[in-house]
Amino acid sequence: MSKISLDEFLSMRISQRCQYFSENNRLLALVYAQQFDRPLLSNLFSLADAIRRLSDSRDGRLFLRALLADRRAMLYFTQPSTRTFLSFAAACHILGMNSSNVRDSTTSSEIKGESREDSLRIFSLYHDLIIMRQPEGGFCEQIAFQMLSWPGRKPIINAGAGMDQHPTQALLDLYTLQRCFADSGGLDHKRIMLVGDLKRGRTARSLAYLLTNYSGVELILAAPENLAMGEDIKEHLRENSTPFIETDNMQPYLSKVDAIYLTRIQDEWDQGAKTSMDYSRFGLRAEHLKSLKADCFILHPLPRRQEIETSIDADRRAVYFDQAQNGMWVRAALIAHMFAVDEKIISHR
Amino acid sequence: MSKISLDEFLSMRISQRCQYFSENNRLLALVYAQQFDRPLLSNLFSLADAIRRLSDSRDGRLFLRALLADRRAMLYFTQPSTRTFLSFAAACHILGMNSSNVRDSTTSSEIKGESREDSLRIFSLYHDLIIMRQPEGGFCEQIAFQMLSWPGRKPIINAGAGMDQHPTQALLDLYTLQRCFADSGGLDHKRIMLVGDLKRGRTARSLAYLLTNYSGVELILAAPENLAMGEDIKEHLRENSTPFIETDNMQPYLSKVDAIYLTRIQDEWDQGAKTSMDYSRFGLRAEHLKSLKADCFILHPLPRRQEIETSIDADRRAVYFDQAQNGMWVRAALIAHMFAVDEKIISHR
Amino acid sequence: MSKISLDEFLSMRISQRCQYFSENNRLLALVYAQQFDRPLLSNLFSLADAIRRLSDSRDGRLFLRALLADRRAMLYFTQPSTRTFLSFAAACHILGMNSSNVRDSTTSSEIKGESREDSLRIFSLYHDLIIMRQPEGGFCEQIAFQMLSWPGRKPIINAGAGMDQHPTQALLDLYTLQRCFADSGGLDHKRIMLVGDLKRGRTARSLAYLLTNYSGVELILAAPENLAMGEDIKEHLRENSTPFIETDNMQPYLSKVDAIYLTRIQDEWDQGAKTSMDYSRFGLRAEHLKSLKADCFILHPLPRRQEIETSIDADRRAVYFDQAQNGMWVRAALIAHMFAVDEKIISHR
Repeated sequence: MSKISLDEFLSMRISQRCQYFSENNRLLALVYAQQFDRPLLSNLFSLADAIRRLSDSRDGRLFLRALLADRRAMLYFTQPSTRTFLSFAAACHILGMNSSNVRDSTTSSEIKGESREDSLRIFSLYHDLIIMRQPEGGFCEQIAFQMLSWPGRKPIINAGAGMDQHPTQALLDLYTLQRCFADSGGLDHKRIMLVGDLKRGRTARSLAYLLTNYSGVELILAAPENLAMGEDIKEHLRENSTPFIETDNMQPYLSKVDAIYLTRIQDEWDQGAKTSMDYSRFGLRAEHLKSLKADCFILHPLPRRQEIETSIDADRRAVYFDQAQNGMWVRAALIAHMFAVDEKIISHR
Repeated sequence: MSKISLDEFLSMRISQRCQYFSENNRLLALVYAQQFDRPLLSNLFSLADAIRRLSDSRDGRLFLRALLADRRAMLYFTQPSTRTFLSFAAACHILGMNSSNVRDSTTSSEIKGESREDSLRIFSLYHDLIIMRQPEGGFCEQIAFQMLSWPGRKPIINAGAGMDQHPTQALLDLYTLQRCFADSGGLDHKRIMLVGDLKRGRTARSLAYLLTNYSGVELILAAPENLAMGEDIKEHLRENSTPFIETDNMQPYLSKVDAIYLTRIQDEWDQGAKTSMDYSRFGLRAEHLKSLKADCFILHPLPRRQEIETSIDADRRAVYFDQAQNGMWVRAALIAHMFAVDEKIISHR
Repeated sequence: MSKISLDEFLSMRISQRCQYFSENNRLLALVYAQQFDRPLLSNLFSLADAIRRLSDSRDGRLFLRALLADRRAMLYFTQPSTRTFLSFAAACHILGMNSSNVRDSTTSSEIKGESREDSLRIFSLYHDLIIMRQPEGGFCEQIAFQMLSWPGRKPIINAGAGMDQHPTQALLDLYTLQRCFADSGGLDHKRIMLVGDLKRGRTARSLAYLLTNYSGVELILAAPENLAMGEDIKEHLRENSTPFIETDNMQPYLSKVDAIYLTRIQDEWDQGAKTSMDYSRFGLRAEHLKSLKADCFILHPLPRRQEIETSIDADRRAVYFDQAQNGMWVRAALIAHMFAVDEKIISHR
């Protein structure tokens, strides 16, 4: 790896930057959802399945716990997040890893005027892994790049960066879909509808991007006109010959899709004036259930508000809570991969 | 267990609701102090004694630590609490259990509009035990009920719910009394004075309730007139033939009781206008010590303010710091019971 | 140890108070930088070296982790601190110790009116070690004294007390200097320049104090006139025949010293009116590097602001990030010493 400057790095195409964060087919840093290609996804999903299976028995759990018992992770979460935080903490624990955390930048020495680069460099001296969630896009990328030149070259995971990237969420979404379709030929050739705030919802954007790794997937993009999927993602879909339909009415498609992925309207980004628009038609209600195929799965990255009526929770097609738990399994798989204990897990017993 | 609705559940009598949270003499959820009957109390106290004894040696501590090393607890504490929080965290650690926590609901995804039911359901997917402290009464009860229908049926412990219930505090108070009287025939036939805010103090209320499990206990209830013990508890005392005297003057009883349980005036519930009343006569001062029986124990759930002069701390009858530590032992015992490792502990060596 | 009152204790000379916190050459409490004499420093540094070396291998890390796996530490940090907090947490983890923390006194039961003495006493009942950082000087000293009379006599470490004392910072600074000079005859007879806020910077004050343990060390004290080193430290230097020069211009000394220790202007103590003075001449810039000796080491306790240009980070004489990591190693060494597992570590393999 030749030494280049941060500016040079940032001016590279995304595919080149992705290469920078891997070595011998192993991630050194996970920053972008674009780092997941199909072989890597396949490996991580097998690993997640194995970890889940081992976790069913006390012996399996104790085996897993011993794997990284000598390692420490740092959870640097300056953007509020409970679910992602706790599932990463649980993933660390599954592998026996100790975790420390900063969840509030006001307790940090940033108030003494330290740069965040210095802070992160110091955290990397105390820990073996940095898991980072930040309100600003770009910062994780920068630190991941700098980390490669700092002694120790500690691995780093992007646990959500503003409106930008949330690659482990994309990972758990795909893992959930892959499990849903495990008995029906896998993800290839499935028709999937994404619903809601496709403009700002990182999760829907990343998922659409990654679904181009699968053959013959068709997408229905159902969003309010002002919150339609961004041109960048649509361009990527076209380049990869993934057909998609845009609509602001999900109803006609309910009976035709193999999975519905609902998302929250991210109005926390509507600074000041909260929009008064009615987005209720981008929600799923009990009356819709009868329109769905018998094996159409219902996903949601959570937290939900009005997008899915709670009475739907009991429907066996509703998999959003499994999806949340899958976050823990794939995050454990990712960490195991980065610390190269994947072989031990796969070959156990 | 037949499926009933939450409303049906909440309309049941407390004794029926208690049954709902047990299976084969093992607690699935601890929500109410009323769930403790004498056989269960006796089991938990023996277990606490064994855990305490094992903790005296490094071998014993390492044995205990291995018991639940493959398990994770979630401490969901949205009501400020340091003591209860730390003693639960220590109890988890004694048994080797990893713990995560949410101590501030503002960092939670609740700010994104998620219902607390969804939050708790997701926490239960990442953890093997939920320990919950909430400012509102009733919420823990509701979640404990719902948890029984969610996959995994994770155990839950009420670590304090508003003015309502704080069952593990009652447990540690009883355990302390039982230890105090270990050499004098146990709790039966003892005369115990409860002093202070008996109206709002959960601890005094629960303790009075649970003391009806013992034979011939007599109670002196010494409280300001406006903070007297509630009618519900007094009714329960009458039903269970537990004699009690009400007074607003503790002085004449100092020489006649086997234990004094002092409590804090809970003026944090006096919203706005703090009462200007003088409650100083509900406190114990050094000059009172000579009036007490030579073996009259002094308890307090802590935190204390003016209720006990610090010079009393050195008196060998003052057991309130032991009482605080007992909280750790009985909480470890409770968790061990819920995870069915009690037999292993009792039979060790 | 005869029983004396807190007032009597506080009226003793510092050397007597230091004796109070040791037993059989082992620290019971670390409160003052003055407790470090040369034999103890030498032991702790050897121990830190051994821990660092063992941490290079998985076997070594697992050996260390087993040492205190049955112990619990409490980090009571009511003064904001990320670096010190995390390095103590990492130090605990290296030795397998579980840690709980209070990082915000507002979540504490202090709001219910409990005295801090009661709080700390209760924390000591749940934990085997208290690590404490407080904005007020004197409080740690008081608690450390009281702890000796409380049951359990739990060890306590001062992790920074206001403007007063920060002994583990002094320890890591000395350890770093000692490592820098390992191949050039050690710390004796070196010339060291301290730069910046020598009046309020605890770290520079403690370091100056402790350097009198070494023979023939010369000090250059470069500070703004209004932030010069305090008379107490200068008196100590004179008493111990440690020569020093005071200046407000570091430039002429750059080429003559073996190490430069830069510090931050602690303007958080300038309540209200922040000083508008220009302290830029107490910073090191790239243009200065050529003036330095080829083996002149650059230290800084961090966090830094403008005191060291970031381009200097890449210079091999810049050791401030090593210094930060050394904090973790010496803190682990200190804890190992206090729990008497030092022999096990030193004699391992």
